[in-house]
Amino acid sequence: MRLIVPLQAVFQGPGGLVLGTILPCALFYALQLLRGKWRASASPDAAPDQNSSRNDQILARNDQTLAGNDQALANAEADAAYISARALAIASVGTWSSYYVGWQEFVRNPYHPVDNPGGCIELGIAENKLSWDLIENWLKNHPQEWPDNGPFCFRHVAGYCEFHGLRAFKNALAIFMGEVMGGRVAFKEEQMVLTSGSSAALDILAFSLAEAGDAFLVPSPYYPGFDRDMKWRSGVKLVPVPSHSNNDFRITKAALDRTFTETEKSGIKVRAILVTSPSNPVGNTLDTTCLLLLLNFSSEKKLHIICDEVYAGSAFADPAFVSIAELLDSQNYDASRVHIVYGLSKDLGLAGFRVGVLYTWNKQVLSSAAGMTRFCSISSQTQCLLSTLLLDKQFVQDYIAENRRRLGERRKWVASLLEKAGIFCAKSNGGLFVWMDMRRYLVSDDPEGEVILWKKLLYEGRLNLTAGACCHCIEPGWFRLCFSSSSDDTLTVAFERLKSLFL
Amino acid sequence: MRLIVPLQAVFQGPGGLVLGTILPCALFYALQLLRGKWRASASPDAAPDQNSSRNDQILARNDQTLAGNDQALANAEADAAYISARALAIASVGTWSSYYVGWQEFVRNPYHPVDNPGGCIELGIAENKLSWDLIENWLKNHPQEWPDNGPFCFRHVAGYCEFHGLRAFKNALAIFMGEVMGGRVAFKEEQMVLTSGSSAALDILAFSLAEAGDAFLVPSPYYPGFDRDMKWRSGVKLVPVPSHSNNDFRITKAALDRTFTETEKSGIKVRAILVTSPSNPVGNTLDTTCLLLLLNFSSEKKLHIICDEVYAGSAFADPAFVSIAELLDSQNYDASRVHIVYGLSKDLGLAGFRVGVLYTWNKQVLSSAAGMTRFCSISSQTQCLLSTLLLDKQFVQDYIAENRRRLGERRKWVASLLEKAGIFCAKSNGGLFVWMDMRRYLVSDDPEGEVILWKKLLYEGRLNLTAGACCHCIEPGWFRLCFSSSSDDTLTVAFERLKSLFL
Repeated sequence: MRLIVPLQAVFQGPGGLVLGTILPCALFYALQLLRGKWRASASPDAAPDQNSSRNDQILARNDQTLAGNDQALANAEADAAYISARALAIASVGTWSSYYVGWQEFVRNPYHPVDNPGGCIELGIAENKLSWDLIENWLKNHPQEWPDNGPFCFRHVAGYCEFHGLRAFKNALAIFMGEVMGGRVAFKEEQMVLTSGSSAALDILAFSLAEAGDAFLVPSPYYPGFDRDMKWRSGVKLVPVPSHSNNDFRITKAALDRTFTETEKSGIKVRAILVTSPSNPVGNTLDTTCLLLLLNFSSEKKLHIICDEVYAGSAFADPAFVSIAELLDSQNYDASRVHIVYGLSKDLGLAGFRVGVLYTWNKQVLSSAAGMTRFCSISSQTQCLLSTLLLDKQFVQDYIAENRRRLGERRKWVASLLEKAGIFCAKSNGGLFVWMDMRRYLVSDDPEGEVILWKKLLYEGRLNLTAGACCHCIEPGWFRLCFSSSSDDTLTVAFERLKSLFL
Repeated sequence: MRLIVPLQAVFQGPGGLVLGTILPCALFYALQLLRGKWRASASPDAAPDQNSSRNDQILARNDQTLAGNDQALANAEADAAYISARALAIASVGTWSSYYVGWQEFVRNPYHPVDNPGGCIELGIAENKLSWDLIENWLKNHPQEWPDNGPFCFRHVAGYCEFHGLRAFKNALAIFMGEVMGGRVAFKEEQMVLTSGSSAALDILAFSLAEAGDAFLVPSPYYPGFDRDMKWRSGVKLVPVPSHSNNDFRITKAALDRTFTETEKSGIKVRAILVTSPSNPVGNTLDTTCLLLLLNFSSEKKLHIICDEVYAGSAFADPAFVSIAELLDSQNYDASRVHIVYGLSKDLGLAGFRVGVLYTWNKQVLSSAAGMTRFCSISSQTQCLLSTLLLDKQFVQDYIAENRRRLGERRKWVASLLEKAGIFCAKSNGGLFVWMDMRRYLVSDDPEGEVILWKKLLYEGRLNLTAGACCHCIEPGWFRLCFSSSSDDTLTVAFERLKSLFL
């Protein structure tokens, strides 16, 4: 209840009735109006940092969509079947982000060397097909039979299993994660909740660490899918913490401090920092200094840290990947605020098998996440198959080494081809992508210029690349190119097209 | 902005300052207080029908949990890592419902004929193991190899696939659903969104058809899991529509009307009716008359209908199962309000494989649900395997017939054994359970009497049965017994224990 003390009976004597009514009323509404204006300017969606003009543009598009939704809702109320506003926002997602428009353009007109050589080449999905042959071979040599007994026999896994994952599979994953992340941490199955893909793990963390309307800080440029995975269902807000090319897109204490302070000042509670390592879209791993900065910052501000390490095994060059788990083992931080997301979609290239991992030191998060896995658990059949694969120690070691080698080679080759088209990439040592500096090809150094360039690439070059705006990059002109889902031949065609567009 | 017109300058002359301030202030706060009280009495959780005392008891338990959460939150705010209230409510679910307490008791001390003959016998989980041998045989005769080409080859499904399901698998499922549901409806793959288990389909429907705080009407007794699947993530309220044993627990127009009116009168928007057919826990199929009643009611009140037909293939006796889809084909209803949930956990007994189906005539629901399946999609490997199985027409026909025969026989046998222990069951023709009338064993005909009986069954009899209260049944003394997950021998032991408790 708000305390309202009426200003009244100030004016006595003749005329008091009129003055005593009108003046306080006028004062009251003037104050309300002022307060309303102040609130609007401090609104959650007004980005509290320098990248606000860029964000405003993106958000203006969101607002348009929401206005569309309001209209849809009005219609629904009238007679048609009612659909919730939150569902309508999801249904309309394809219409307002270039990230989805590009994908749809590819689906409409996909490139094929023989059947459709003029089609759109997809370079926007971070998928690793470079080492599928290794897994294919393993599958051929290990025919999938149901054993008669043991944890992987049909009768053991056909019915209801633990929704949060079979213990045997968790153990296999724990060993694999240890191996992939450098062999210096012993991951434990008790700290794991398995989900059908790592998007579900992100969604569960957003739901668990914040109320709807609270915010997470996300160093930008960041993975465009976070705006979907972290926000759609949970109602959490993501606030970009900007970084700059002149600093190799590194996270700084100053930017964290400024964004945190401005967000909280605007009345929004910040609950966590969300980072990726190797970072998506830049492709650089977070080093120990950076991880310590994040841990210290989160201790100071009482924040959670979500570390998305889904590309850990795809770090292909020095400096070596360091998991945040390593620092918790050796340092004195509150581990109950630290949560790692992992999965097999990137490092094994098995996105279709839907295996995600939520790894946490927080018992309450473990418990609520386990409850929520009833909505997102992994097929037990797939858990059985992958347990056998992951427990094949020799195969795993060979795979990790060979996959890293192939990614590193591909990255080198792609960068050299891009340089021939006059395009340079940000420094990187991991991930399935390069972060291309195309600022010299902007017609104007602003968001509009980037949109024009993105359209030129998509509609003239028939190349679907991810524009920096989708990643909340504050410098227009940066693009993400995913290099591990196309063949050498397709990439060569893509680079020919790039050259013919600009040279 | 609320319009507040200050009552002022009413008292002029001597004493006006005091009277003009105090009286309006007192009046203002008295009004606020009254309004607050009125709001509390119209609170969503006050159950708007005769079963309110029963519900109050259940909700009181919820309130206790929430109070616990408030405490937890207070602690969290102070220093510990913050966990959201919605996550804490899920983490604490095991502590406040007898449905979960019973399960935990079983997990703590599971019955085994040799290793633990005094252990707890699980009769609370609706799982069908009666026909696993048929599927096991099929698997042995159809070794799972990855074909070199086609929609089920490794390279076609290893990477990102449509999150909402492979088209080939949807087609196989559409044919299977048609077969299981009587062969009179041609289900279409375009109307399907596949999810990792049908719980996820229910959750998505709750999210899509209502805002948080809106309500669904649910004829009771109803499946206890709805209170989890429909409410946890979406914030939707479920309002029971009571039915009575003297009417074979049939849904009536009078009860629907009364519950609808009272819910809306209390300020809560009703968005849908949620039913199961065959019903869970009673086990009777909804006949055409009942389905038409629901369709007419939903037309009249502009409500959605969610029809959970997950036990369609487990209807084992006349009258034959009728899908709501049949009536839409032949009648003139607004199909965009109708949504069917299906899955392979019950009719095929493959709960571990996590296959759910959301089948809808509503394009916006299709579109938003497809978006949300990025959090709950099915392993492509499992989709490939089950496509092959479901497309084996002869196997499917034989399986459905034999599984029905086995369920019917088991039901008959169980009912006859129960009768020997003096327990009669409600009429039923489907499902994996019987709905037992144990009213004659109540020490008092009230909710407390049922709790005493449930405890006696669990702690003295070491039998985990689902108490009617968990299903929001308004008549104390009814219990659900799931009969298809235990062996004949185990059930025989269970009935011996029942007899020794009561005879």
